[in-house]
Amino acid sequence: MRVYSFYERASRVFNEYPSLSKLLVLFTASGGGIVAFSDAKPFQNVYANSQGNTQRKKVVVLGTGWAGISFLKSLKSSSYDVQVVSPRNYFAFTPLLPSVTCGTVEARSIVEPVRKITEKKGSNIQFEEAECYKIDAKNKKVYCRSSQDTNLGGREEFSFDYDYLVIAMGGRSNTFNTPGVVEYAHFLKEVEDAQRIRQTVVDIFERASLPSLSEEEKKRILNFVVVGGGPTGVEFAAELHDFVHEDLSRLYPTVKDYVKITLLEAGDHILNMFDKRITDFAESKFQRDGIDVKTGSMVVKVSEKEISTKERGTGKVVSIPYGMVLWSTGIGPRPEIVDFMKQIGQTNRRAIATDEWLRVEGFGNIYALGDCATVNQRKVMEDIAVIFSKADKEKSGTLDLKEFQEVVDDVIERYPQVEIYLKKKQMKNISALLMKSQENSQKPIVVDIETFKSALSEVDSQMKNLPATAQVAAQQGAYLANCFNRMEECENYPEGPLRFRGTGRHRFRPFRYKHFGQFAPLGGEQTAAQLPGDFVSIGYSTQWLWYSIYASKLVSWRTRVLVVSDWGRRFIFGRDSSRI
Amino acid sequence: MRVYSFYERASRVFNEYPSLSKLLVLFTASGGGIVAFSDAKPFQNVYANSQGNTQRKKVVVLGTGWAGISFLKSLKSSSYDVQVVSPRNYFAFTPLLPSVTCGTVEARSIVEPVRKITEKKGSNIQFEEAECYKIDAKNKKVYCRSSQDTNLGGREEFSFDYDYLVIAMGGRSNTFNTPGVVEYAHFLKEVEDAQRIRQTVVDIFERASLPSLSEEEKKRILNFVVVGGGPTGVEFAAELHDFVHEDLSRLYPTVKDYVKITLLEAGDHILNMFDKRITDFAESKFQRDGIDVKTGSMVVKVSEKEISTKERGTGKVVSIPYGMVLWSTGIGPRPEIVDFMKQIGQTNRRAIATDEWLRVEGFGNIYALGDCATVNQRKVMEDIAVIFSKADKEKSGTLDLKEFQEVVDDVIERYPQVEIYLKKKQMKNISALLMKSQENSQKPIVVDIETFKSALSEVDSQMKNLPATAQVAAQQGAYLANCFNRMEECENYPEGPLRFRGTGRHRFRPFRYKHFGQFAPLGGEQTAAQLPGDFVSIGYSTQWLWYSIYASKLVSWRTRVLVVSDWGRRFIFGRDSSRI
Repeated sequence: MRVYSFYERASRVFNEYPSLSKLLVLFTASGGGIVAFSDAKPFQNVYANSQGNTQRKKVVVLGTGWAGISFLKSLKSSSYDVQVVSPRNYFAFTPLLPSVTCGTVEARSIVEPVRKITEKKGSNIQFEEAECYKIDAKNKKVYCRSSQDTNLGGREEFSFDYDYLVIAMGGRSNTFNTPGVVEYAHFLKEVEDAQRIRQTVVDIFERASLPSLSEEEKKRILNFVVVGGGPTGVEFAAELHDFVHEDLSRLYPTVKDYVKITLLEAGDHILNMFDKRITDFAESKFQRDGIDVKTGSMVVKVSEKEISTKERGTGKVVSIPYGMVLWSTGIGPRPEIVDFMKQIGQTNRRAIATDEWLRVEGFGNIYALGDCATVNQRKVMEDIAVIFSKADKEKSGTLDLKEFQEVVDDVIERYPQVEIYLKKKQMKNISALLMKSQENSQKPIVVDIETFKSALSEVDSQMKNLPATAQVAAQQGAYLANCFNRMEECENYPEGPLRFRGTGRHRFRPFRYKHFGQFAPLGGEQTAAQLPGDFVSIGYSTQWLWYSIYASKLVSWRTRVLVVSDWGRRFIFGRDSSRI
Repeated sequence: MRVYSFYERASRVFNEYPSLSKLLVLFTASGGGIVAFSDAKPFQNVYANSQGNTQRKKVVVLGTGWAGISFLKSLKSSSYDVQVVSPRNYFAFTPLLPSVTCGTVEARSIVEPVRKITEKKGSNIQFEEAECYKIDAKNKKVYCRSSQDTNLGGREEFSFDYDYLVIAMGGRSNTFNTPGVVEYAHFLKEVEDAQRIRQTVVDIFERASLPSLSEEEKKRILNFVVVGGGPTGVEFAAELHDFVHEDLSRLYPTVKDYVKITLLEAGDHILNMFDKRITDFAESKFQRDGIDVKTGSMVVKVSEKEISTKERGTGKVVSIPYGMVLWSTGIGPRPEIVDFMKQIGQTNRRAIATDEWLRVEGFGNIYALGDCATVNQRKVMEDIAVIFSKADKEKSGTLDLKEFQEVVDDVIERYPQVEIYLKKKQMKNISALLMKSQENSQKPIVVDIETFKSALSEVDSQMKNLPATAQVAAQQGAYLANCFNRMEECENYPEGPLRFRGTGRHRFRPFRYKHFGQFAPLGGEQTAAQLPGDFVSIGYSTQWLWYSIYASKLVSWRTRVLVVSDWGRRFIFGRDSSRI
């Protein structure tokens, strides 16, 4: 088939020049919250599971975002019957959503049908466009219904049984229950959101051009308010500024002087998860651009024509007339996930808690990943006694260096906070940590449980929740698929660390997140990037790095070609302002 | 500015190789009814009207479709203040709408913002995105209101005075008051219609794949019914067939065998305005493709899940279960046009009647063109007495050849049906017609009024209404703009034919439609074309002719590049089936 032959030919180029792919496949950021990417093949020597004609296990995957699609792309599906359920029949490259809001990139250029992705995996993967409204963990069943609301008939309902369940349903915009947000604000989470924003921006410019509008009303509707100074809000403000100044101001000369962009941030600085150099650069660039950045402003209410903020400095509530509000203050859990968490006794949480193997706590056959989940890293101090007794093979009550070294790799693998702590304290290995806790560091190392405890007492302070980004989700999906691919193999030859609280070893290595850095596009062909190792890069060349990495990380050759030609089209012809 | 420099560079290529442009700029067809195109510069020697600093006349243009945009593009606006009002802030290349329904071409590739088009004409042209809801011909005023329905505030209303009014508001789909059509059927008149159809097609395939659907229900929702065997309906059926067989069948293997496309036509044949060879080819191709063509089927009712037709053969009413209906049976007048026609006493008509100079009958300063208007060609027989007396300078009661030849060009120009009649009868000129009416053709020609009448008695039978096509609308727009451009010049030096019922000459030549032929794409890379002179071309090469002509006729270089790259993208990657 012509599609495949082209795809394969193009893939071959990349495979024959692996350096080319490495050059491009680096890392990246921004989108629905902070996002970034994993290389889809973290493990190289993957075995095919050859169960032959035995009964295949049924895997149900909920969601086709970064986590779900990354799982599906890496899964060798021949050993499973896979059922995918998602209310959207496509995968969207969310980091480019801010570009879609102003037509820098077209919506259709950043989406790829799920069926096109699964088709390549053979006939064991089925997809249904539906939303899962209930998970019955007791009976291993998920209940779904069609997400269509058309005149084709009533809503279809059906259910699936599963052996393994992969929950990758993502999150939704968090309004913090601020009144009026759902009614009047725009979000930037889905492709439809971006399309609606684009139409609204053009609507506002057309409306502001009408002869019957008062000056005051013009000023009001041309005030674009962005709530949230994270990467999404900042990128949208920058995109909008470029759209207005590069394209719209020429076509709407009578209204361009009324345009105002206001960015509200509750904290002290925008982009506060980035290095201070980036924050400073962004704030001064926005000041030069005329984007009004108001920090210390917490939105308390949105009404039809005004947005009210409480200023931290004065404690006063101020009302700002607006024409459009974009709400981008991070994500919260979806209602179905809240239901499920209640069912399994995980109340008072903002995401499903899993262990380090991405298994939902208490369930060996349910996995949760991406924005709807959070990895609950086990504390060293909770296990300190069992670690000590496991290491103390002679049951002498003390550990010598040899005993200790036999378990040190397992400890580091099981408790990644140890390694982070060591790095932070610039120590070479745990021995150094132990030696430090001994008063006379010339003695051969022999530690008792109390010394061991005090040496490791601070490592748990290094535990951090993973950010809700595409980068994390994609790495989790690929990790989990790799586990599924080697389920049988690793059953016989476990590769994980020692079970300190049990016998033998864990079947798999626990999930370990590798941070590749992140981008913050700032408009005017300038981007800031925070790379691993505190390396910061800002400016025009970083924008080109951004272009090349985003192009390389797109999900298919079709989207790659389309996005790159969209960029070219924008350079030559500008952005389209037709209201469609 | 970079946009312009690119545009100008590209234009220069075409200007330096005029033959290239002639090669491409030929003719063409299909779309919202039958459509086709005019060369935008029918007159070569256009004078600029140099009114200097005298008061400019105010021209209000209603509508930005083919007629309105063609008028604006050809108008030398320096002598007028032009106010354009349209509910859409873009021009859409409607002949490609059927391609948009299945994603062969993207919606955004066929639209161009009106402001981009008018911007090039200088600051005398203003645009408002609004709909005109009332024309007050007595007070020379149009009343408009914003077409936006958002939360930006109430609907703005305002009015404009005019010296000249150009009505180019188009038509709307004609339902013939068939019950249920508005509620349940899709139309294909606007860009939004095409986008909705595309979503609906994908929705249907996703829904049909759900496990809970019965066989019968699957069959029902996968029956796509097209009502109307004109070029739009036929092209949509062909596009849909290609979409299903080239793209969807691979992605939806479990449902592809249930798909059915039914084409209902009330007449005896589809494409009945085309040559019989084209009709035959289309019908047999559709039969091979499995498209069920039902002729003699008149739709009497559409309900939620069934469409009822009356079969002419049996007189019985048959009900067909369906999933989607496309209604494409031609166009009727918009409600505002009906109102205006009542106001000026033109009831019982389907479009505003104008004279041959596109002036609304009874108004010297209101013009109507495109689908909302129809040219009321004056009959020769109504004027036969005044023509005779005008020609009979000596008042002898008879015309000799010399007298006759002095008026013959004016007669032919004023009454185009004369020329058509001569062509049809294969006569060289009117003399031959007169000679034929004389018994003894050897005598020198001298005719009295009775002979003159009988000679011309049949010519009026050749009068035909112009079709409601893009080709007609575009030619009318360009014609009218040319009249406006030379208003002053032709006031002093009238170029039109003799006024038979008055003195002097008409200011302008009357509008004369030049038919360049039309296309009917039939799917599978095959197209039929009916060219002037009964020349018929069918097949793959005609498809390439279609590609090149459509590409050349697109309104801007941006749309040209986008449409051509859309075609390329489709060849390489297929059509996208993401539901956005």
